[in-house]
Amino acid sequence: MAENGVAPPRGKVLTLDTMNPTVKKVEYAVRGPIVQRAVQIEKELKEGVKKPFDEVIKANIGDAHAMGQQPITFFRQVLALCSYPELLNDNTFPEDAKSRARRILQSCGGSSMGAYSASQGIDCVRQDVAGYIERRDGGIPCDPDNIYLTTGASDGIVTMLKLLVCGEGATRTGVMISIPQYPLYSAALAELGAVQINYYLNEETCWSMDIDELQRSLEEARRHCNPRAICIINPGNPTGQVQTRECIEEVIRFAAKERLFLMADEVYQDNVYADGCQFHSFKKVLFEMGPEYSDTVELASFHSTSKCYMGECGFRGGYMEIINMDTEVKAQLTKLVSVRLCPPVPGQALMDLVVNSPQPGEPSYDNFMKERTATLNVLAEKAQLTQEMLNAVPGISCSPVQGAMYSFPRITIPEKAIKEAKALGQAPDMLYCMRMLEETGICLVPGSGFGQKDGTYHFRMTILPPTEKLKILLDKVKAFHRRFTEQYS
Amino acid sequence: MAENGVAPPRGKVLTLDTMNPTVKKVEYAVRGPIVQRAVQIEKELKEGVKKPFDEVIKANIGDAHAMGQQPITFFRQVLALCSYPELLNDNTFPEDAKSRARRILQSCGGSSMGAYSASQGIDCVRQDVAGYIERRDGGIPCDPDNIYLTTGASDGIVTMLKLLVCGEGATRTGVMISIPQYPLYSAALAELGAVQINYYLNEETCWSMDIDELQRSLEEARRHCNPRAICIINPGNPTGQVQTRECIEEVIRFAAKERLFLMADEVYQDNVYADGCQFHSFKKVLFEMGPEYSDTVELASFHSTSKCYMGECGFRGGYMEIINMDTEVKAQLTKLVSVRLCPPVPGQALMDLVVNSPQPGEPSYDNFMKERTATLNVLAEKAQLTQEMLNAVPGISCSPVQGAMYSFPRITIPEKAIKEAKALGQAPDMLYCMRMLEETGICLVPGSGFGQKDGTYHFRMTILPPTEKLKILLDKVKAFHRRFTEQYS
Repeated sequence: MAENGVAPPRGKVLTLDTMNPTVKKVEYAVRGPIVQRAVQIEKELKEGVKKPFDEVIKANIGDAHAMGQQPITFFRQVLALCSYPELLNDNTFPEDAKSRARRILQSCGGSSMGAYSASQGIDCVRQDVAGYIERRDGGIPCDPDNIYLTTGASDGIVTMLKLLVCGEGATRTGVMISIPQYPLYSAALAELGAVQINYYLNEETCWSMDIDELQRSLEEARRHCNPRAICIINPGNPTGQVQTRECIEEVIRFAAKERLFLMADEVYQDNVYADGCQFHSFKKVLFEMGPEYSDTVELASFHSTSKCYMGECGFRGGYMEIINMDTEVKAQLTKLVSVRLCPPVPGQALMDLVVNSPQPGEPSYDNFMKERTATLNVLAEKAQLTQEMLNAVPGISCSPVQGAMYSFPRITIPEKAIKEAKALGQAPDMLYCMRMLEETGICLVPGSGFGQKDGTYHFRMTILPPTEKLKILLDKVKAFHRRFTEQYS
Repeated sequence: MAENGVAPPRGKVLTLDTMNPTVKKVEYAVRGPIVQRAVQIEKELKEGVKKPFDEVIKANIGDAHAMGQQPITFFRQVLALCSYPELLNDNTFPEDAKSRARRILQSCGGSSMGAYSASQGIDCVRQDVAGYIERRDGGIPCDPDNIYLTTGASDGIVTMLKLLVCGEGATRTGVMISIPQYPLYSAALAELGAVQINYYLNEETCWSMDIDELQRSLEEARRHCNPRAICIINPGNPTGQVQTRECIEEVIRFAAKERLFLMADEVYQDNVYADGCQFHSFKKVLFEMGPEYSDTVELASFHSTSKCYMGECGFRGGYMEIINMDTEVKAQLTKLVSVRLCPPVPGQALMDLVVNSPQPGEPSYDNFMKERTATLNVLAEKAQLTQEMLNAVPGISCSPVQGAMYSFPRITIPEKAIKEAKALGQAPDMLYCMRMLEETGICLVPGSGFGQKDGTYHFRMTILPPTEKLKILLDKVKAFHRRFTEQYS
């Protein structure tokens, strides 16, 4: 009680000052302030507020279905059958869809997707994942016991990082990530209180990895933390490059020499568009380098149902494969994932269909291949279209979109705009993207959200809008960039 | 290189000694060593190994469908429609199922469950959750903006605990949890490096909460940490009690006086069986206590699709409602959940159906109510049966199973067995349960996995097996207990 007998206003238990300080440090640009403003603008448009555009076009996030990409019919048929097994009596469903559904249901407790699965994932799904990896990697064996199903790839990545974090001060775990990076990595490291170690990709050579740069960044980091892991995203997000086999070998040699745990984010493994480019999994290259490497280098690789030709983000399906993990640590990993009981079973079922898709001779094969090919072809066209149209704009230069789902063009921002942004305490490319959103309704993510070399500016734009809309979007970007440049010249 | 020119064997980067020490401290009995042994035994049975039983009966986990409970037809119809919208043209599906599916799909990006939802969850689902809470709580308003959809309740609980953790040493966040507790809490606190503060439930009065005990535990804890939150599970897990309205009021007053953030785990809100018992939500009681409390006490309450009459654990659906949370902290919460993009959309859809189930006059209403009522009635019967049969065993005494899905009987373990267990470095009830598993195939969880008063022993057994199997199981428990007692007398 205060002296006048009135209780002082009771403060909150949980405030900005008393909450978890590591959570405060988390940033996630893909759903940051610009996207929040985009959602607001959409509401304003609905309420009839006049804008210089009719709709917000979200090119900020790799969300294929939201941009109109259609799901694979076969996958959805099996999911419907698994959801409501009465449909197994329906003659309109193809036999291969039914047999896949029966196989999945038989592996579920009580033959229901409503039962918890084993924490590591449904047995038969892990077996199918192992079979898929073996086929993909030319027969290199894969043990289902090394497969953990996850809630999207993000979940697996965070779980692995969590295992790796220890020490305090100069012995605190450091993790090398590419710059530009996908901000899940920086967010997870911030939350875990680990040290983020930046290595820069080389924009001049199509965002390639450079061993000298890895070495530089590692040596610098060793002065203040204990670097223990290196993360690679291939094909690249946000930068769209596809790594060469030679580059992957070099990275593996580097990890072996420097004793780093390798984390390979390979969720875009089917998204390769450029001539002469090919996806090589870290697992495959590791094993082809012989036992000196394949017996020792610790590797976790990640895949997901969210990207490639599937684009099934909402189901949060994914898996990770771990190689050469210490047996006791593996037991700890299994224990850790058991606390969350299991990844969502519909996502597990979907992952199963991705790794066990219709085969030649099965009734759904032709249609499956037609849909898959069409989706990937359209993505390849849009990758080409995007880089061409962006490169035609004076002041914008875009590296080839060899793979993944994004362009990450470099933009010239006039000095006056840079000054204005700095006065506002904003990153210059945030000012640029925010202005673009307000004037055109196009929602992009500023390069500063992913990290970039000092003094350079970029944005990330997905290639996902339907071709006709993508053209309009790119024309608007062009007009905006010209206007913005003129205004600040 | 060693002196003989041969490289020394390269150690792993990640070992038990160099992994995250907080992860090592995590324990999760519900899927602990006894369950791992049960899985092994199942494999041995399949391989033809002779055992004194034909099958393993898992009564260790609240996994209703795995125990044969059937899903609600209406829910699964809508999920099938959402998965494969072609079925909207199928005349065998009822109109109300179709209209629910259309509503959900219209709220999904690109009308697909494959699109990411907003991080906080699909707008229309959050609105439906708010409507459900208002109806449940007699009209007390609920703002959809306070609803966060989650990946099961576990996800929400861990997220809230994560926000609350700060400080070091004597200022480190402490969180009060009941003993016995559901081990998600102890596991999450261990992982977050927060301090677990035990308050004991009173077994003599059907596991009720006692304010003196809360006070004692709080005061003791204040000597070495900063207690900031109290967690309550009602109806109780593993103890099956249903809290009285008066008790909830007392807890709220206690939280207000002691400035504790309230976390109410209410996932068993429909699982109330005992005469005279009723579920009261913390939200409702809080608001009925008037603005002195409802304007100040910070509350997060959790619900899920996994329990009640649904039992849809595999879909990992859930929500949390937050009350009186600081605006800036709420923004941080929204940012934090955005890093994982969104909860699984099929789980969100299912949550929507739970909170927006068929209404009188709709074609699916009668069948829905029939299925719902039948499931809850059977659970009530099994709760009764379980406590009666257990109480008929000399040396076992079981509090009334008023709600939830578990019995948590106290067992008398002979001194000789206790000594043997201690010599083996095992908890005596672990020895007991492990012996029961080996001899009868019944898989229970020892009380030590949930915490219990020193010198007392318990096990948790779900009431979920089908009635006939449950009887057999209880008979076997009885015979085993007699044998075990004789053997060690």
